[in-house]
Amino acid sequence: MQIQIFATGGTFDKEYNELDGSLFFKETHLPEVLQLGRCALDVQIKTLMLMDSLDMRPVDKFTLVDSCKCSTFDKIVITHGTDTMVDSAKLIAKELLGSSKTIVLTGAMIPFKFGPSDALFNLGSALSFVQLLKPGIYISMNGELFDYDNCRKDKELGKLVRIRD
Amino acid sequence: MQIQIFATGGTFDKEYNELDGSLFFKETHLPEVLQLGRCALDVQIKTLMLMDSLDMRPVDKFTLVDSCKCSTFDKIVITHGTDTMVDSAKLIAKELLGSSKTIVLTGAMIPFKFGPSDALFNLGSALSFVQLLKPGIYISMNGELFDYDNCRKDKELGKLVRIRD
Amino acid sequence: MQIQIFATGGTFDKEYNELDGSLFFKETHLPEVLQLGRCALDVQIKTLMLMDSLDMRPVDKFTLVDSCKCSTFDKIVITHGTDTMVDSAKLIAKELLGSSKTIVLTGAMIPFKFGPSDALFNLGSALSFVQLLKPGIYISMNGELFDYDNCRKDKELGKLVRIRD
Amino acid sequence: MQIQIFATGGTFDKEYNELDGSLFFKETHLPEVLQLGRCALDVQIKTLMLMDSLDMRPVDKFTLVDSCKCSTFDKIVITHGTDTMVDSAKLIAKELLGSSKTIVLTGAMIPFKFGPSDALFNLGSALSFVQLLKPGIYISMNGELFDYDNCRKDKELGKLVRIRD
Repeated sequence: MQIQIFATGGTFDKEYNELDGSLFFKETHLPEVLQLGRCALDVQIKTLMLMDSLDMRPVDKFTLVDSCKCSTFDKIVITHGTDTMVDSAKLIAKELLGSSKTIVLTGAMIPFKFGPSDALFNLGSALSFVQLLKPGIYISMNGELFDYDNCRKDKELGKLVRIRD
Repeated sequence: MQIQIFATGGTFDKEYNELDGSLFFKETHLPEVLQLGRCALDVQIKTLMLMDSLDMRPVDKFTLVDSCKCSTFDKIVITHGTDTMVDSAKLIAKELLGSSKTIVLTGAMIPFKFGPSDALFNLGSALSFVQLLKPGIYISMNGELFDYDNCRKDKELGKLVRIRD
Repeated sequence: MQIQIFATGGTFDKEYNELDGSLFFKETHLPEVLQLGRCALDVQIKTLMLMDSLDMRPVDKFTLVDSCKCSTFDKIVITHGTDTMVDSAKLIAKELLGSSKTIVLTGAMIPFKFGPSDALFNLGSALSFVQLLKPGIYISMNGELFDYDNCRKDKELGKLVRIRD
Repeated sequence: MQIQIFATGGTFDKEYNELDGSLFFKETHLPEVLQLGRCALDVQIKTLMLMDSLDMRPVDKFTLVDSCKCSTFDKIVITHGTDTMVDSAKLIAKELLGSSKTIVLTGAMIPFKFGPSDALFNLGSALSFVQLLKPGIYISMNGELFDYDNCRKDKELGKLVRIRD
């Protein structure tokens, strides 16, 4: 089973710029994360964009939805900033719900490059969910699985929460 | 959904003993791994034993099988040394196949305490598989899911491989 | 020999705020850094402030100089942001040059909490220099020792450089 | 000022062999450690051997002493297992005391590859001491500086201690 991973940036791929002390994106760390996890799956990584999800414009959202639509893979994992992850999931659902594709969005609360990060855990989790789930649009964070239309980011808790049980 | 995690040791929990330069077990690092992954699941950790799986005697294997049998949880993840992980899975299957329990064994190739470890990835993966799989005995390593009777450890590659496709 | 360490913040102590994705200060990581280095020296840590050195106002600089002056220790290490580290060293020198005190300022290019950081190396270095140097004001970064009046930060290289050999 | 670093192995360079679960040596991690510390010094690394210091035979000790003697550098840092570090320092002193060379032996209690290691701190420390010390043979561990003939390894504490104050 082949899995497509789309990188869009988000906290997952943020780095520390030692020249000016800011956070920035240089490249996706997905290959490094997969190697660390000794991932034995047949995955193909494609970087669609590298940005904070709050900075994504309509054209970026369109690129993401369109990439899902045009992908020849039926199993897709997307790394995405958590702030607008749910919105992107809904946009994707609008176009792809009912298709043969299983799409799981995931992210991280702490950048992978910052030592004690949840990125490795979340990617292991998302890659596992995507293998077993029937077609649909899902979000996976910190071990939990959400339907795309049944979660929201709680900004105060800093985590995704279920809307209803 | 509640998940029981049984710790048995294995590479996952090995540490470096700085007094004599050997590898040893002090305690399970599962709470630390779950915290790092910001795991939001309702899990209960129980340490059954802490040993290299090559050192497990029949009585230890019995303890493991019996703990699965007596557990009141229907979802169980077991951290286990990879060397005899498949044997243990078969022993568990002999007693529990056909029950209502979903049991996933996992482990690590590099100890969690040794920085660049696959433990976090594997635990994220196992905790996700166990949520979706129907009752049965499974092994999950490095993103891959195996039926308990369809894998073996390839000692030269240092990884689990499928017996037949 | 007792050594006083003054924490002022800087990149050394920056952390990632997972609620809003910004960098911030919560507390100094000096105790953790010393424990990691298994530091066997008799050191006393005091947090004077926790800020980016570009944000230090005259009153903060005064606090730093005054703390050096009032300290009962003759060996002082200061962790400091690299951007205005040289300026602070000069202010300290103006008041304390000629005193019995040996003062070494150091910092980090990557925050200690961000895994692959130079903080541990720099602190080991500064704590060693301060033990052997005769009274004076010095800066130590990345293994190099500078006189307070013979270095500047090269913003393009992102490192301290010697003014003249 | 140029500094020669001789690698001999020891805990500093130990790695985890995931094929058989043992500890072994593959190569020195000194280049990686120096890069992590963003070390700006002019150092030259030479691997003399890679072994547990308890496994060093007379011929290995001879190689070490001879390499110090033949080195064209006046500043030498040696990474060495802590178990026989003091013995090696004494052998070196027998041949080189009175020469123009400053030699500092250092090591680690936890392997560099095992995440939370003291290797980075110790190397930063040794490279700083060697720059300032007058010719002689010294040992530096965990921030402390010892004369070669005034320390011993306390096996129970797992650290170097001073013989007399």
